[in-house]
Amino acid sequence: MDVSTKEGHLAIAQTYRSTLLSNVIPFWMRYGLDREHGGYLTALDRDGTVIDTDKSIWFQGRGAWTFATLYNTVEQKTEWLDAAWSGIEFLRRHGSSADSKLYFTVTREGQPLRMQRYVYSESFAAIANAAYARASGNAQAADDAIAFLDTYLGYSFEPGRMLPKVNDATRPMMGIGALMIGIATAQEVRENLGDVVLKGRTCTSWIDWAIERIEQYFLKPEHEALMEGVGPNGEIIDHFDGRQLNPGHAIECAWFIMHEGKRRGDQRLVRLGLTILDWMWKRGWDDEYGGIFYFRDLRGQPVQDYWHDMKFWWPHCEAIIATLLAWTLTGDEKYARWHQQVHEWSFRHFPDPEFGEWYGYLHRDGQISVPLKGNMWKGPFHLPRMLWYCWKLLDSDAGRKGYTP
Amino acid sequence: MDVSTKEGHLAIAQTYRSTLLSNVIPFWMRYGLDREHGGYLTALDRDGTVIDTDKSIWFQGRGAWTFATLYNTVEQKTEWLDAAWSGIEFLRRHGSSADSKLYFTVTREGQPLRMQRYVYSESFAAIANAAYARASGNAQAADDAIAFLDTYLGYSFEPGRMLPKVNDATRPMMGIGALMIGIATAQEVRENLGDVVLKGRTCTSWIDWAIERIEQYFLKPEHEALMEGVGPNGEIIDHFDGRQLNPGHAIECAWFIMHEGKRRGDQRLVRLGLTILDWMWKRGWDDEYGGIFYFRDLRGQPVQDYWHDMKFWWPHCEAIIATLLAWTLTGDEKYARWHQQVHEWSFRHFPDPEFGEWYGYLHRDGQISVPLKGNMWKGPFHLPRMLWYCWKLLDSDAGRKGYTP
Repeated sequence: MDVSTKEGHLAIAQTYRSTLLSNVIPFWMRYGLDREHGGYLTALDRDGTVIDTDKSIWFQGRGAWTFATLYNTVEQKTEWLDAAWSGIEFLRRHGSSADSKLYFTVTREGQPLRMQRYVYSESFAAIANAAYARASGNAQAADDAIAFLDTYLGYSFEPGRMLPKVNDATRPMMGIGALMIGIATAQEVRENLGDVVLKGRTCTSWIDWAIERIEQYFLKPEHEALMEGVGPNGEIIDHFDGRQLNPGHAIECAWFIMHEGKRRGDQRLVRLGLTILDWMWKRGWDDEYGGIFYFRDLRGQPVQDYWHDMKFWWPHCEAIIATLLAWTLTGDEKYARWHQQVHEWSFRHFPDPEFGEWYGYLHRDGQISVPLKGNMWKGPFHLPRMLWYCWKLLDSDAGRKGYTP
Repeated sequence: MDVSTKEGHLAIAQTYRSTLLSNVIPFWMRYGLDREHGGYLTALDRDGTVIDTDKSIWFQGRGAWTFATLYNTVEQKTEWLDAAWSGIEFLRRHGSSADSKLYFTVTREGQPLRMQRYVYSESFAAIANAAYARASGNAQAADDAIAFLDTYLGYSFEPGRMLPKVNDATRPMMGIGALMIGIATAQEVRENLGDVVLKGRTCTSWIDWAIERIEQYFLKPEHEALMEGVGPNGEIIDHFDGRQLNPGHAIECAWFIMHEGKRRGDQRLVRLGLTILDWMWKRGWDDEYGGIFYFRDLRGQPVQDYWHDMKFWWPHCEAIIATLLAWTLTGDEKYARWHQQVHEWSFRHFPDPEFGEWYGYLHRDGQISVPLKGNMWKGPFHLPRMLWYCWKLLDSDAGRKGYTP
């Protein structure tokens, strides 16, 4: 299916819409809602059977964002609003530790299991509450969204707040993850609550700050790569961790930046996103079997992570968005071709025709590694976000601008 | 090659001996010794090129144990004693933090990088110093061996000393790893320094204590499985982590126990080891592609670790030892057959005929995933230990008892 043709455009938009509304969302509504204790159960076997009742705090936020966003942008269905509330309420009751940092996992009933150094639970709680506040008018949700984003920014960017993984005195290092997720979180909070001020900066100003840092420190024209981690002045850290590239992650970053450029009509930002996409597509696409590799080494040396060549659902979702957005922004046939490649590879390998939803973890050649539909890392987020974003993009004027019928 | 025939026995012993002495040890002696800063570099590409200069503290101990043990049991080569000293000295200079706990990784020069909650660095430092003390008569090495084992036992088994991974109040859980490695560490310290007393118990008494706990809490006849983690009274924890079996790890545990039974002439211990081997071989062996799976679920449900079906070098090394030891102890043809299966699969898929040593990480079907020869987890330990142990076993009277020529 080629999005640059009129029939292709319409058919692809219809595929995204129907996969979202008739397949993926019904799967999570049927199997993922915990009607006894509230919140979402994401550890589901192929057929939806719960195989682990532990709850991911990431997914209480991510799931609530998905359901609230559908309510806000697709249709005001009570069942979606209720589903969003279920995650919001579970987070309020059971998400936080005594020092108000959010957990990583809790039991089905909400007893604490694991706390992480990171604050990604907070970023997802922020977008969930922002979208839910817009959907419901709930004032506490709006306050909570801002408080979670404030916590996220504090832990992520105030020196010394987060315990480093590697001794900071020996090898100071910064990761791109916090900046990227900072952009997406601020975008979503702004989308739903307006351009609020956090720690003296608007969301838009935080987005600028994060993009500037990515461009200044992580973007390496001499290598045609976007790094995952660098030294405090952007130094390449010539060790396993420092050289390791994550093409899917970088391509996700690319579309966050393109999205921002499109929103502002800022061609410089659009070009920055396109550049990242161009470089990381080349590094990530598997010419032999198709699909996107998980990890690559900056210089093509062996990586330490032995499962580096597996094909995960989420980098493919991100690449589908990025290539489609690039096509609609530029009309460059190259992006329509890339979109076709990743769209077709993904829809050929990931969907489960029998029970719905997508498998998450494939071997390099596209064979299934584990048949589960969810776990602590996979739930109602990357796939529905991609289907929703791409459907809306193709359905909008901006989307239609891309093709020449 | 069938070890139950006289020709097979001799040829297999010769394979282990020559692979150890003419291939694996020369590889590490040539590429793994850091002649500038001391200690060992284990992050080596296929051809021995250093691809990461960071040092694993596990491998400073494990490597020194390997070289000192060859000196003690094969030939008193000065180069092996010097190689062992290099690791011992690096550990003394750079291994410990201010609170005397050992790091997990340091830079090539010895600056601290990562500290772990676990104390496996200490267990490997203990066996290294014990073997080196015997090789050299170095009194500090003997003292250090005992001190490291004491630290290991304290952190591993005194309640509250080690920070739990999962909230202890919600879900108390104990792992088999600390008990298993406790057995092997006490065995090696006893082998080289005699049956010393730690915290009021001899090494032998610690071994009994650990085996009893494994039998009481981790062994599940009703499931024919050895668990990796259980509740404080041996409860099965019905979540991803609790159900996850590691056949190679369990089979390693099996031969530690058989080895103890053989040493003591204790048939009950031998039978316990055989039982674990029988159960976990059935769960681990891949009937379709051959080789041993990395993870399996207790009930055959999907595991969370998507690389569960990969074939790693070390479970194969441990299974070669366990099946061979079982064969020499019982003369049961089943074990000779299993040994042949895992030996042949391993020697067909892991060795690199061009540059020597073994690849470490294969896909399920035996194809290479990453071509490196070492990293922070792979170095001169499992493979040389297997080759040494199995060669010595087949070369000894006890080994020869097994086959009927």
